[in-house]
Amino acid sequence: AYRYSSVTYRYNLTLVWLLIVYSDMCDNNHHNELVISDDPMHPANLICSLCAKFYEKDWCLGTGGGISIKDPHTNHYFIAPSGVQKELMKPTDLFVVKGTANSNELNVDDVTFVRRPVGLKPSDCTPLFLTCFKELDVGAVIHTHSTNAVLASLLYDDFFEISHIEQIKAMPSDKWDANANKYVNLLFQDTLRIPIIGNKNFEYELTDDLLEVCKKYPHSCAVLVRRHGIFVWGPSIAKAKIYNESIDYLLGLAIQMRQMGLPTVKSTLTQGHK
Amino acid sequence: AYRYSSVTYRYNLTLVWLLIVYSDMCDNNHHNELVISDDPMHPANLICSLCAKFYEKDWCLGTGGGISIKDPHTNHYFIAPSGVQKELMKPTDLFVVKGTANSNELNVDDVTFVRRPVGLKPSDCTPLFLTCFKELDVGAVIHTHSTNAVLASLLYDDFFEISHIEQIKAMPSDKWDANANKYVNLLFQDTLRIPIIGNKNFEYELTDDLLEVCKKYPHSCAVLVRRHGIFVWGPSIAKAKIYNESIDYLLGLAIQMRQMGLPTVKSTLTQGHK
Amino acid sequence: AYRYSSVTYRYNLTLVWLLIVYSDMCDNNHHNELVISDDPMHPANLICSLCAKFYEKDWCLGTGGGISIKDPHTNHYFIAPSGVQKELMKPTDLFVVKGTANSNELNVDDVTFVRRPVGLKPSDCTPLFLTCFKELDVGAVIHTHSTNAVLASLLYDDFFEISHIEQIKAMPSDKWDANANKYVNLLFQDTLRIPIIGNKNFEYELTDDLLEVCKKYPHSCAVLVRRHGIFVWGPSIAKAKIYNESIDYLLGLAIQMRQMGLPTVKSTLTQGHK
Amino acid sequence: AYRYSSVTYRYNLTLVWLLIVYSDMCDNNHHNELVISDDPMHPANLICSLCAKFYEKDWCLGTGGGISIKDPHTNHYFIAPSGVQKELMKPTDLFVVKGTANSNELNVDDVTFVRRPVGLKPSDCTPLFLTCFKELDVGAVIHTHSTNAVLASLLYDDFFEISHIEQIKAMPSDKWDANANKYVNLLFQDTLRIPIIGNKNFEYELTDDLLEVCKKYPHSCAVLVRRHGIFVWGPSIAKAKIYNESIDYLLGLAIQMRQMGLPTVKSTLTQGHK
Repeated sequence: AYRYSSVTYRYNLTLVWLLIVYSDMCDNNHHNELVISDDPMHPANLICSLCAKFYEKDWCLGTGGGISIKDPHTNHYFIAPSGVQKELMKPTDLFVVKGTANSNELNVDDVTFVRRPVGLKPSDCTPLFLTCFKELDVGAVIHTHSTNAVLASLLYDDFFEISHIEQIKAMPSDKWDANANKYVNLLFQDTLRIPIIGNKNFEYELTDDLLEVCKKYPHSCAVLVRRHGIFVWGPSIAKAKIYNESIDYLLGLAIQMRQMGLPTVKSTLTQGHK
Repeated sequence: AYRYSSVTYRYNLTLVWLLIVYSDMCDNNHHNELVISDDPMHPANLICSLCAKFYEKDWCLGTGGGISIKDPHTNHYFIAPSGVQKELMKPTDLFVVKGTANSNELNVDDVTFVRRPVGLKPSDCTPLFLTCFKELDVGAVIHTHSTNAVLASLLYDDFFEISHIEQIKAMPSDKWDANANKYVNLLFQDTLRIPIIGNKNFEYELTDDLLEVCKKYPHSCAVLVRRHGIFVWGPSIAKAKIYNESIDYLLGLAIQMRQMGLPTVKSTLTQGHK
Repeated sequence: AYRYSSVTYRYNLTLVWLLIVYSDMCDNNHHNELVISDDPMHPANLICSLCAKFYEKDWCLGTGGGISIKDPHTNHYFIAPSGVQKELMKPTDLFVVKGTANSNELNVDDVTFVRRPVGLKPSDCTPLFLTCFKELDVGAVIHTHSTNAVLASLLYDDFFEISHIEQIKAMPSDKWDANANKYVNLLFQDTLRIPIIGNKNFEYELTDDLLEVCKKYPHSCAVLVRRHGIFVWGPSIAKAKIYNESIDYLLGLAIQMRQMGLPTVKSTLTQGHK
Repeated sequence: AYRYSSVTYRYNLTLVWLLIVYSDMCDNNHHNELVISDDPMHPANLICSLCAKFYEKDWCLGTGGGISIKDPHTNHYFIAPSGVQKELMKPTDLFVVKGTANSNELNVDDVTFVRRPVGLKPSDCTPLFLTCFKELDVGAVIHTHSTNAVLASLLYDDFFEISHIEQIKAMPSDKWDANANKYVNLLFQDTLRIPIIGNKNFEYELTDDLLEVCKKYPHSCAVLVRRHGIFVWGPSIAKAKIYNESIDYLLGLAIQMRQMGLPTVKSTLTQGHK
């Protein structure tokens, strides 16, 4: 699932993005047909409805957090704007990036915004989102400022880990099932590990560290950013949402277990039948 | 209320279920008339609306948890699919199992899915649900991954127990009221005990342990599964929901009491008038 | 506000109520006109909408809790049924008791249910509700199983107390304002005290203790019942709701303050400027 | 952003306000055209919809809290009434104050209520709200009784402070960006400080202390009132809401960090890479 990126690519991507964001160019082409749809499962509608849901869960307060979805049919990448109240976001607030024609891959030379709402800037997470799409070959990325993620990042060092909790069975493992053509999920007695990287002043500066840690944990579907929040991805937005929800449940449980003096990775030697 | 099962039955049930789930047989018979109804109290509608409610309470995050209801009029058992987002579930996503004709009992030879949505698998809890219907003679079973249930399972050994809390009066006791033709509820000063069983890698493997512990606690309407969650049942879905809600309230209260150093079973000798 | 009751009255009330509840008499007179109204502020509608709200706050889980309202225009007392899911309650589920004609007072000889839904029993709190209406001269009573109330009842002995918190200014004091013809509210630096009584096996058994403690705290608008919950009353349902919400906020705050080692009554001598 | 007020002004304002509130004058001019609008972004509609939202977050329980918005087009100041259930408030419940004609500034001689609903009193926070508009030149003020604010005010002395948390990047700094014509937001590694003032018996008595502390922290967009709650302001209601949400998230996080023994301001010397 993980394709090693060239450093060149990443810097190019960041550069291109900075140029776009801070330039005054604006084509005034609204391309509303890219974001207006009656289908509640259209990426533009899903980003808005899920952000409203995530706001209710306190994951996207004060304009924090965001979602980006790739439309597998059109090769379009939908990205939320920066600095808007996430629960009030409308489809027409969304940016759309086009991938390379005739390819499922993003190419740095093609990072063009085919839809760019006047008066808005794309999410600061855009370089990170595009890097996930390009390098990790995913279908959707979720970013939140969940309090559970921030607190867990202060309680664990290099990675969060938990084992022997039923909910980890909702998370993917590194074991490939050739028949089903997918990675099987973790078993109850497996250990889920989510790497933690340090935060930086700007979100695009996290790109290298995120890719670096993904080399070490090539099958992780999430990275915690210390004192910041979490990025979670999956082959589809449905899967990314399921992973994100399951991880947040596990992080919250782990924090309560630690407060009660219980280890989150079970040792059969020291802990008895519990 | 409890009918002792033969081990043979249970293994047969599990076997039949595994054959069904992993076989490619599919009759393409949608039988939508079994699940489409304008009545909000129809089992198919209730499973969907209650799962959405339970999702809001964080009991069914990331596709976890589920509900199964028996229709006393038609002898049909409605079962949620596996791996779907519980808050988005539609009646047409549900499986329907038919019990023995002219009988209120499930018979292992009759575990046939009369409705089987294409592209979905029945809940992994199906063998457990059917075992509850068959062996415990209940009308509905609720399964959640409630954090309170998981935490309580780590704080108690063989059973959770609490006494002298008004809410336990919503729970059934083992005392039969011949006039009312039902078990009376617990009194304030009674002690509610909910057995705890260990978790296994697959949910169908819990069947034996669940039945075993129900022999010891024949009037229990719930079993905690350590590091997993809870199963709660009742003569009707309304009763099962009331029990489940009351138990979750009591589990949450007990965790807070333990954190404050208060015992959850009151000893009149040691605790004074509180 | 408080009129001392005769013991005779209380026992009569309890007796009458027990006779009514356990008798088979039923006049089959639905009197739907007493509970069906388009006005959302009609007592029957308010009881249902507020119970649904209180359910969302976890105050009325598993059929626990209830509300009773007096209609000052018609002298009718609206009472919720026993054992129903409070968030699903409909106006036609409600019981109606009629007070003495040409009087604002309930008279024990007149405790007649002028509306009595077939198949339902009035709330177990009915004797307590009617006692509050009769003896404390109030317009509405709210009863919840709030976890904050139960936990606070385990942390305090004879009464809960808190001072120097802005929210206590929403609570009534014992100081009468002759101009405004009402009791003024507490000041910031006042101390709110809510008496705590022990629980009993049946709710009607609490009647004497509730009245006894109200003699000692004649201006209290609430009583905590240890290991059970809280009763809150006011001159109107709006006031009772405001008191109940403010008390629950203060109870929750107090529990967190105690967990942090902070006293809930401020001593200017020992605590400095905080 | 901060214009130093004369003490004279403040006392005049308070005096005028007290005269208005306790006088019997009432012009019976409803001026409903000032508050009735189909536009959900009209200040009167926003105050009502946001108060309902804030009620759900437990910030405005029991009539506590409030919002005031200045309409930059008409120079009108919209103010909630005192003592009403905030989630039930209607636009016609609102008071409207008119600023000086041909000026964006409030002038003490012009504190006239151009709309004054019969039977209601303006919020007790009115002098504080008007002082913020006049002296701090803001567009909206939010006041809540958030439990996080009250608890944090008990854990910190002269100011709440937190650093190295991503969410602080939603908060304004004291650095002016001449190009963008606005203050830039805090960086990740900056420290957010929110001053804390002591509570008084009446809200109008807080005016002097609020202005005094704003001299010391001229770029603060919020003040905590110990044992009371928080006041948050911004150039627009959208900004004030974003600041308020972000601060409440940070206060809640800080309380949990303190409970875990973690400092909320990171020292690179003592705390290692976390």
